[in-house]
Amino acid sequence: MRIGELSRETGVAIPTIKYYVREGLLPAGRLTSPNQASYDDGHVRRLRLIRGLIDVGELSVSTVREVLAAVDSPEESVHEVLGAAQHAITPRPAVTPEGVERARQAVAELIRRRGWRVGLDHPAFEKTAVALATFRGIGHGEFEEVLDDYAEACERVAAADLAWAGRNAEVDGLVESVVVGTVLGDAVLTAMRRLAHVEASARSFEDAAAEGAGGR
Amino acid sequence: MRIGELSRETGVAIPTIKYYVREGLLPAGRLTSPNQASYDDGHVRRLRLIRGLIDVGELSVSTVREVLAAVDSPEESVHEVLGAAQHAITPRPAVTPEGVERARQAVAELIRRRGWRVGLDHPAFEKTAVALATFRGIGHGEFEEVLDDYAEACERVAAADLAWAGRNAEVDGLVESVVVGTVLGDAVLTAMRRLAHVEASARSFEDAAAEGAGGR
Repeated sequence: MRIGELSRETGVAIPTIKYYVREGLLPAGRLTSPNQASYDDGHVRRLRLIRGLIDVGELSVSTVREVLAAVDSPEESVHEVLGAAQHAITPRPAVTPEGVERARQAVAELIRRRGWRVGLDHPAFEKTAVALATFRGIGHGEFEEVLDDYAEACERVAAADLAWAGRNAEVDGLVESVVVGTVLGDAVLTAMRRLAHVEASARSFEDAAAEGAGGR
Repeated sequence: MRIGELSRETGVAIPTIKYYVREGLLPAGRLTSPNQASYDDGHVRRLRLIRGLIDVGELSVSTVREVLAAVDSPEESVHEVLGAAQHAITPRPAVTPEGVERARQAVAELIRRRGWRVGLDHPAFEKTAVALATFRGIGHGEFEEVLDDYAEACERVAAADLAWAGRNAEVDGLVESVVVGTVLGDAVLTAMRRLAHVEASARSFEDAAAEGAGGR
């Protein structure tokens, strides 16, 4: 198909498609004449993947390039790339080095306690520590109390993710499934957490009201 | 304290502090002379909160303004603002209206099945549906199979969040705790999910190896 059809099929504007080709996200079309290129279903799929990672996963173009490079050459550590590919890379927040060091120890202790076989050089280890240090830096240090609840929830989600990626592997390739599930899964998880907060609030008000009635 | 001390105390540059005042994120200092203002511990706390929301929570300045407005006037629905305050607002991804409608039905069915008392006009409802439609749009539709695993994980996290916010309420105000816990909690949750993936992978390779050995 020509570029106009690729654009109609995916809803992505032609200049944007050309931009993705220039930036190395999308392979160039096959030249059928000096100024005409032909695209196939692989381009449609890849373009949808790119838009999903950018629009819903909220990754930057340069992060998408890294993630797709990992998809295309599975020798690279997909886990490493995905660990780093958590939204844009952000400037260091205003936390003290001692605060981050203390948080690192708390996260390392959590990993040991749960028996997770994860190296402490994983990018997500540092991210967890920085987020935790920020809690403490703005006066909410006791968040460490709920780390095990978060860890149990993450164990459950990770087991579901892996089973899902395994079922999808035949169709799409395991690596692509892992990438899609990890990045888009973040969007589902954080949005659904908001919905669960509403229900948890409703329940706690109900409990408080019931206690009030019982006390009369 | 003067602005220079506020800057040293928080690690935020003076021009950035002035920018936050202009943008309405940080209250102006108390004027002690025509060109000198005085800041207090409230400014230190607020500035650390702003940096945490921007650096770790990865919110935009305009989203932080909305979130802080909700903190300052608790009549407003904090849940509504937080539902919308999930990273930047993004353009509509390349999914079809039918795809989103189908995903909305799946999410509505999940909410009903779990007995969550959440209005379908909640911003996070639409975000969940769009993320789900994107999965299907790029050929990974069967993600719906793991929605209940995600929901159970979110119920656990939300219960922990609420208990934590309740314990913190006396110190910092319930609304601020909810805001901090929701936004920074996303960062902890998504980073920790990466770590849990590594462990889940290690476990699944181990299981596969054990099966291989048993078959011999």
